[in-house]
Amino acid sequence: MAFVKNAWYVAGWSGEFEHQLHRVKILDEDLVVYRTSTGEVAALKDRCPHKLLPLSKGRLIDDRIECGYHGTTFGADGRCTRIPGQPRIPPTACVRAFPIHERHGIVWVWMGDADKVDTSTVFDLPQISDPAWDGHQGDALHIKSSYINVAENLVDPAHVTYVHPTTLGSASHANVPVEYETKGDPILAYRWIRNAPPIPFFAQFDMFEGNVDRWQYFYLHLPSTAVVDFGSADADPDSTEDRRHEGVRMFSLHFLTPVSANYTIDRWMHIRNTRVGDEEFARALDESFRAAFAEDKDILEAVQVEEEKPPTGSRIQLSIDQACIAYRARIAKLAEAEQL
Amino acid sequence: MAFVKNAWYVAGWSGEFEHQLHRVKILDEDLVVYRTSTGEVAALKDRCPHKLLPLSKGRLIDDRIECGYHGTTFGADGRCTRIPGQPRIPPTACVRAFPIHERHGIVWVWMGDADKVDTSTVFDLPQISDPAWDGHQGDALHIKSSYINVAENLVDPAHVTYVHPTTLGSASHANVPVEYETKGDPILAYRWIRNAPPIPFFAQFDMFEGNVDRWQYFYLHLPSTAVVDFGSADADPDSTEDRRHEGVRMFSLHFLTPVSANYTIDRWMHIRNTRVGDEEFARALDESFRAAFAEDKDILEAVQVEEEKPPTGSRIQLSIDQACIAYRARIAKLAEAEQL
Amino acid sequence: MAFVKNAWYVAGWSGEFEHQLHRVKILDEDLVVYRTSTGEVAALKDRCPHKLLPLSKGRLIDDRIECGYHGTTFGADGRCTRIPGQPRIPPTACVRAFPIHERHGIVWVWMGDADKVDTSTVFDLPQISDPAWDGHQGDALHIKSSYINVAENLVDPAHVTYVHPTTLGSASHANVPVEYETKGDPILAYRWIRNAPPIPFFAQFDMFEGNVDRWQYFYLHLPSTAVVDFGSADADPDSTEDRRHEGVRMFSLHFLTPVSANYTIDRWMHIRNTRVGDEEFARALDESFRAAFAEDKDILEAVQVEEEKPPTGSRIQLSIDQACIAYRARIAKLAEAEQL
Repeated sequence: MAFVKNAWYVAGWSGEFEHQLHRVKILDEDLVVYRTSTGEVAALKDRCPHKLLPLSKGRLIDDRIECGYHGTTFGADGRCTRIPGQPRIPPTACVRAFPIHERHGIVWVWMGDADKVDTSTVFDLPQISDPAWDGHQGDALHIKSSYINVAENLVDPAHVTYVHPTTLGSASHANVPVEYETKGDPILAYRWIRNAPPIPFFAQFDMFEGNVDRWQYFYLHLPSTAVVDFGSADADPDSTEDRRHEGVRMFSLHFLTPVSANYTIDRWMHIRNTRVGDEEFARALDESFRAAFAEDKDILEAVQVEEEKPPTGSRIQLSIDQACIAYRARIAKLAEAEQL
Repeated sequence: MAFVKNAWYVAGWSGEFEHQLHRVKILDEDLVVYRTSTGEVAALKDRCPHKLLPLSKGRLIDDRIECGYHGTTFGADGRCTRIPGQPRIPPTACVRAFPIHERHGIVWVWMGDADKVDTSTVFDLPQISDPAWDGHQGDALHIKSSYINVAENLVDPAHVTYVHPTTLGSASHANVPVEYETKGDPILAYRWIRNAPPIPFFAQFDMFEGNVDRWQYFYLHLPSTAVVDFGSADADPDSTEDRRHEGVRMFSLHFLTPVSANYTIDRWMHIRNTRVGDEEFARALDESFRAAFAEDKDILEAVQVEEEKPPTGSRIQLSIDQACIAYRARIAKLAEAEQL
Repeated sequence: MAFVKNAWYVAGWSGEFEHQLHRVKILDEDLVVYRTSTGEVAALKDRCPHKLLPLSKGRLIDDRIECGYHGTTFGADGRCTRIPGQPRIPPTACVRAFPIHERHGIVWVWMGDADKVDTSTVFDLPQISDPAWDGHQGDALHIKSSYINVAENLVDPAHVTYVHPTTLGSASHANVPVEYETKGDPILAYRWIRNAPPIPFFAQFDMFEGNVDRWQYFYLHLPSTAVVDFGSADADPDSTEDRRHEGVRMFSLHFLTPVSANYTIDRWMHIRNTRVGDEEFARALDESFRAAFAEDKDILEAVQVEEEKPPTGSRIQLSIDQACIAYRARIAKLAEAEQL
């Protein structure tokens, strides 16, 4: 499946970039990324147009990159500023520069046409900067699977029962139907499990005395950012969707970077409305997330291996696939529109 | 070279299969194999038709496999018995089931058309169950070479002198001509070496006082099972082919599983008419076989590497190639007939 | 880029070949190379025409190779001398033999048409056997890059400033122009840096008290042998090109073997007119060369990786590329002429 180019993708957490050269691969394209002396992040195509040496193998001199082979030098805007031994700089001596936008500790890069850049579409979520909520950055999980497979998994409540039986799910809700809203952006899949024991993830912290009402809301923002809103509240026949904030509520955020056709980095973090400021609790939660996401990785990598084999036999679609089918169709449509 | 599909292939020794899920690859096809609670072996295509996750990554629940991604469940016959959250099971929800036949401690699987299954063609050899003979299971030798190359080596007495000079062969018989019977199944290549010292393989056990008459009969059953009948008797000008059982006689059996175009598993064992019940002797023999077959593996893997390079220069055929040429031609014909 | 076949290539240092079988790969072709009992080096295509087993996996018997599979035997001229069990040897039973020429401790092999062999074109350099000069064999440096990339680097004085800032170069001469002579064989690129501090390579040996005049003459002999003539003399406005021998002068020799399209072995050595007979000095120099050539390897392998990716963006040529451009064009022309 083709990539959607006109979109913001995550280059890394803000903390990953210093005043030195980093190579970052996104949509099969190598970028050299660095923070300038004024604190802004710059991203250039990581390839000198002379002998093709990656610029990331050169030296950062002030805010310019000097190629490590013959000293050809480029500014943060991609324009060549010096060719040693040659006074004239040809106008073709430049490398592509990529627009960057940094928000909430995340560095986003625009991979598409320069004239379509729109910073208003950079992902945002009000709770990230709400003092009533607390958050914690997790890991950069490397998954040898397409971002399509990884994203589908993040708009799919039904897998939780079988992939995460000892962490995020429990067998008791295998047959609870899932609801879908597939027209908007984000695409949404969700379900409520009423009056059931807490899942192991919460049970370990002794947060509830009896049964709970639980919810899972999987929001998938195109092309590849997911927000999983899940939580529990003491079982109550009168509770409704809009009272989720009264319970223990968490968002697990997943910023997917499509590295290549079959390799994805999932940078994940959580935010929560509970035990705000409790760093130890945050770390313990992340330990549980880490264990659960390793279970996803295992499944997703095995699926990728199968997908790359010659197709044999017919495939089936299930009623739980509604959000996934909509997601694939919309990605395909966006990618196709870019080819026109 | 194409595979012959309408045939029985070895999935493994009986002892390899318990009440748990094993992945087995045969003819480039992944199977999930398990023993049911009634002791029979079942084999299904190892791929869920929903998201393609290998079923071997799921759970065995009673005698059914529950997919590890969304819980879709299949019986030993390949039919879907449950889709969580969805009452209706579509008729296309099934995976291919492969016929299995177990005999003499070996699990055979039919890889071809279901309507051509014929258990009368499963390999048999009366001596395996004859109390006057004793046997010992060897190893599953993994060889990075096509099954064609491995099988050719097993209908080729002439290689023994050069590949196994310190175990199964000796330089003294390099020029003894080989006889061939290439029309039947098995294909046969054989020779007698008269009045010569015992080979190192037998000499180590002090079995003979003087010179011996030795024989090598290489039987190759289509598509890929070999029986090497070899032995020695005190040298006697009157001994004839039909008196082999009066000497020390052994069958080295090779069950070749074509895993993929360039990867073969050779499960080998021996049976013998000598020192019946002597387990220590059996182990000592297997040590010698193990050393000899490692010599074959080395040669066969080097040949495979060369075959995969672009062809350069002309090739030659020798008079010792008669059985190999017949074997290749007959495999090609069988494979071609299946394409019609 | 295609290989130039009608040329001498280095199979190895003389010391690499004994009376045993070595596999050597040149221009993507595997050769079995050995020294005969009369001290000459023989080279055959490393593949038995029967079952394709590499002859290097066989045995050297006197000066003939016996194949390790069925004993087919070939002489140093490539002709089959024995087929066990078969009296008649078909005329097609032979392997290609490659002409060999040994000079100055280097074994050269002719990879082209047999009727075009010309030993007068084997590389020579009078100083190698001049008692006023001394030399020292370095290493066989394996570089995962095309020989074109490696050779270009050896006719490119401009890279020294940026790739070897702490060994062979210094920033002070970045803008000193390079002169070119691109019509002859060898192709030449050179420059003089006048009245400058000695480079670190020489400074470590305290050879000069004040500033020096330095030179770099890069001679590239087609297809793939380079001589870098470099040195320094006390700064003197009257010194001229033909007085280089009065200073400290060294030749760094590079014998490139194109192993495959993206793999090259650079066997390097140095000769010098200074401290003749001082073995400790020779070893110290080689340590410095070793460090510098590792810097080239790093750059050249990164360039190869980029070259193998799909091309994106336009490339630029600089005025320092004159020798490289001429070299590529002439190699392309030679290779093309061989296709006619």
